[in-house]
Amino acid sequence: MLQQTNRMSLVDQAAMQIEKLIETGVWQVGTKIPPEPELMEQLQVSRNTLREAVRALTHAGMLRTRQGDGTYVCSASALGPALQKRVRKTDALHTLEVRHALEREAAALAAWRRTDEDLQQLRRCLEECKLAVRSGDNDAYAEWDMLFHRAVVAASGNGLLMELYEHMTEGLRETVSTVVEISDHACFLDLHELLLQAVERRDEQQATAAVHGYIEQSKKHLL
Amino acid sequence: MLQQTNRMSLVDQAAMQIEKLIETGVWQVGTKIPPEPELMEQLQVSRNTLREAVRALTHAGMLRTRQGDGTYVCSASALGPALQKRVRKTDALHTLEVRHALEREAAALAAWRRTDEDLQQLRRCLEECKLAVRSGDNDAYAEWDMLFHRAVVAASGNGLLMELYEHMTEGLRETVSTVVEISDHACFLDLHELLLQAVERRDEQQATAAVHGYIEQSKKHLL
Repeated sequence: MLQQTNRMSLVDQAAMQIEKLIETGVWQVGTKIPPEPELMEQLQVSRNTLREAVRALTHAGMLRTRQGDGTYVCSASALGPALQKRVRKTDALHTLEVRHALEREAAALAAWRRTDEDLQQLRRCLEECKLAVRSGDNDAYAEWDMLFHRAVVAASGNGLLMELYEHMTEGLRETVSTVVEISDHACFLDLHELLLQAVERRDEQQATAAVHGYIEQSKKHLL
Repeated sequence: MLQQTNRMSLVDQAAMQIEKLIETGVWQVGTKIPPEPELMEQLQVSRNTLREAVRALTHAGMLRTRQGDGTYVCSASALGPALQKRVRKTDALHTLEVRHALEREAAALAAWRRTDEDLQQLRRCLEECKLAVRSGDNDAYAEWDMLFHRAVVAASGNGLLMELYEHMTEGLRETVSTVVEISDHACFLDLHELLLQAVERRDEQQATAAVHGYIEQSKKHLL
């Protein structure tokens, strides 16, 4: 019994150490983790303990093992995979409502906290959206539209808001693609331009009104 | 190598089966899970596979093993523990901003979707808040205040919004306690009454204005 408890705690300790390496960015998303012998040495654990810790983090969606290759970091925290899983089980309208909540608050905060770099990034994304519309490239539009919205949320300066929003992006990309195919882009671009100008002028009310506008448009297309 | 892969997938499969039992409410939060032999039989897995699956879910914060007692369900999904962990690392202002985002949207939706039962629950919570203020019971106030806010979010009819909000409640309770000790209650109670009346009248604008009001009050006390 005591041995069992110790072993459990060793696995948990090893998993927490690995989590910390990922969360602090020592191990970046997309990179392969060091080979087993090196990790056993570094974390001072046995092969079995290490493997079980890796499997726990794989189950949490933070690591992924590719057969015959190695183990890769695929999420910076357990929050992302858990939220994405929850969003996949949520209907599109409810997801859009939560997106609205996060984006409206982000736009209001961005009007106060945006830097010149934030404005440059917003301007660049919007120009690329316009280019994509002119050349009829729906995929490019969906991609730059997503980057525009992420840039708004980043300009809020609130890391928790950003993280929640980015983890919901997987679902968002689908929403954008759906909406883009069935709607004219002009109206969305105008509202994006309005939002950008409001954030530039530090006009909180106009910024949230623009978000409200394009979310209502999206809802209409969805229903 | 092949055996390793099979074993990994068996553990993962067992963990997913257990997760499903928890997420669908077959195993309720707070209850003890069945004994090992029963589970081995039910999931058709070996003792080692079962134990490793349980440890993975323990690491994810869904199960907790009490020494010499048994293993208990402590969260209905992996989202809760992951979000709570993230909130603990977030400063109070940023947490309040996300709370604002979720509550403002919830109030707007509640004005459209609230049922008579929602109104009854809101009224009850607010009456208990008033009673707690009159009798000077800060703990009771914090508890009923939290239930009032949860009831607003529940009245939104959006399960994802509710889940995100409830998982952030642990941090919220601390915020409420902090704010309650240093502020007069009267102003908060008036704004809560305003919110309740707006939701009752289906007045979306007034409902979000009331949320904005008490969040701005909380921010002032925080800064």
